[in-house]
Amino acid sequence: MNWMIRQDYDLAFMLRYENIAWYEDGKVRILDRRVYPTSVEFVTCTRHEEVARAIADMVTQSGGPYTAAGMGMVLVAHESRNLSRDEALAYLKRAAHTLSTARPTTTSRMRLVTEGCLRAAEEAMDKGEPVDEAIFKRTIDRLNHRYERISKVAEYLVDMFPDGGKIMTQCFAETIVGTMLREAKKRGKEIKLFVPETRPYFQGARLTASVAQDQGFDTTVITDNMPAYTMVTKKIDLFTSAADLICLDGHVVNKIGTYQIAIAAKYHGIPYFVTGAPDKGNPTVATVTIEERDPNMVLEARGIKNTMEGVKGYYPSFDITPPHLVSGVVTDKGIYTPYDLKRYFETETESLY
Amino acid sequence: MNWMIRQDYDLAFMLRYENIAWYEDGKVRILDRRVYPTSVEFVTCTRHEEVARAIADMVTQSGGPYTAAGMGMVLVAHESRNLSRDEALAYLKRAAHTLSTARPTTTSRMRLVTEGCLRAAEEAMDKGEPVDEAIFKRTIDRLNHRYERISKVAEYLVDMFPDGGKIMTQCFAETIVGTMLREAKKRGKEIKLFVPETRPYFQGARLTASVAQDQGFDTTVITDNMPAYTMVTKKIDLFTSAADLICLDGHVVNKIGTYQIAIAAKYHGIPYFVTGAPDKGNPTVATVTIEERDPNMVLEARGIKNTMEGVKGYYPSFDITPPHLVSGVVTDKGIYTPYDLKRYFETETESLY
Repeated sequence: MNWMIRQDYDLAFMLRYENIAWYEDGKVRILDRRVYPTSVEFVTCTRHEEVARAIADMVTQSGGPYTAAGMGMVLVAHESRNLSRDEALAYLKRAAHTLSTARPTTTSRMRLVTEGCLRAAEEAMDKGEPVDEAIFKRTIDRLNHRYERISKVAEYLVDMFPDGGKIMTQCFAETIVGTMLREAKKRGKEIKLFVPETRPYFQGARLTASVAQDQGFDTTVITDNMPAYTMVTKKIDLFTSAADLICLDGHVVNKIGTYQIAIAAKYHGIPYFVTGAPDKGNPTVATVTIEERDPNMVLEARGIKNTMEGVKGYYPSFDITPPHLVSGVVTDKGIYTPYDLKRYFETETESLY
Repeated sequence: MNWMIRQDYDLAFMLRYENIAWYEDGKVRILDRRVYPTSVEFVTCTRHEEVARAIADMVTQSGGPYTAAGMGMVLVAHESRNLSRDEALAYLKRAAHTLSTARPTTTSRMRLVTEGCLRAAEEAMDKGEPVDEAIFKRTIDRLNHRYERISKVAEYLVDMFPDGGKIMTQCFAETIVGTMLREAKKRGKEIKLFVPETRPYFQGARLTASVAQDQGFDTTVITDNMPAYTMVTKKIDLFTSAADLICLDGHVVNKIGTYQIAIAAKYHGIPYFVTGAPDKGNPTVATVTIEERDPNMVLEARGIKNTMEGVKGYYPSFDITPPHLVSGVVTDKGIYTPYDLKRYFETETESLY
């Protein structure tokens, strides 16, 4: 198998920083982002159930699970290569269910992935072509489609950066950070990055800062109590984040801490640009439920407990930033005011998954 | 030696939570707050140079060094017990210099401590009384004086707490947290505490939360990116912190993160009360220099590096909150607007050290 991925992306780089999974010779390899970059380890899955487990255990997160599920489906085709057409199809469908339901909150989007893979499998069977190659090609196609979309987002976002600008980010925005940095480099904009560490998992320090540093940008990590003061002392020009969800009414759901930085940015007259696409499935913020994770995570750091027995923890994974704190929603179709996001859907939009 | 400390304070409690040092039988014991409460360890000093080293190495901080320096001077008297008067006095003066200059930024206040101890020593020599006991008594007197002052501060502060109120704190305010909690308990105010962990040293999680939990209060730790969102979801009533410095013009210098929480409090209409006394030595914020500490501290947690080689760190120890974000300065003489702090000095004020 040697389907080409975009030439300007290097596979090793993608595996390490861009959070993708990769199928080769009966194995799916996934970078273990729970420990990166303290150690660089790959989880190698030889059964699709192991891919589902890796997704559930957050070996990969953000956009990673969508590619992992696709590569997992390639592995399923490999596992069922000696079965009859009907048996293989039944096997693929059962496995598709296992992969798409690995994490409850993303099941509906994950199903778009696995259903697409099933369609590709059936077409290949009809034509008598290798099923694994068809699913692999479909997965790479969707990845390329997401990259193209994100490249456009990056172009509009970098338009907003002053030359030599000091940019504050929040958490890991998967491919968007890498793409934004490549675009800034291409235009010769000498930006400097200030990256809050993003407790409790340190994704900012571990992932965002590492990607930026590896691409040669001047990168400074701060703890999560420093953004407001750093805006003053380092004269931050712009705050940007991706989003887990952008409601049609302009409310932004993203990694915990985004709301606090957005308040501080507004206070200091610094614009906040969020990247992504509005979600038709959430016309208003009223339908959003914020996931709370294991409170013990905030009571420890790198496995060491910080406080006394009996103290409680509180761990909302995300927070909600209201539209009046958002300067613009940067999409693949341009920058929208958060108050008029329905306009995004006036032109046709292909699913990303 | 058995000089009484205030009866409503228990020595074991003081040593563990209230950050004091204690002289007994030729040794000064200091709780090692760098590792508390992950482990409860005391540094035992048998020479005054070891006390100075412990202060420099931040075994104790906040108000702790002032008592540690006094107890260190008791140890100095013990070390010089067999010298002649002149020799002993010269020895005491050299040791006073060593102790008071252990940390550069607090030297002027520490000198008030050691000079007071030297005066006590000379008086004892004049009367032919034991020098170590005189210095010990002087040190306990100052401690009691600080406690009395802080008790009054706590009374005024607790007046501001609604019954059943949800109180957000910032970092460890030494004795004030314990005193405030005792006062709240005495009045039967069922407050709940929300404590940001305070990276990079986790003083909030390790110290503030542990003191509150140990006194039986409902205590929840959050990471430093959660205060603003927690204000919304948990309906926080009031934000309070101590201060490293309150300028006469109402600017508050305190542990990094205070400024950001104060901005969020203002945004949500939550009052922010700072405790302490204005500092005549800083008539305006213009004279304040913010200490920057080792940037590597923000790149790691509990000794484990979080990010890639080459990424920079930025570690301002403190930040500056302007008076328009401060609802009131809670002192031993009542609550002042931050805009009129010179009024505090209209009545006489005894030095705390």
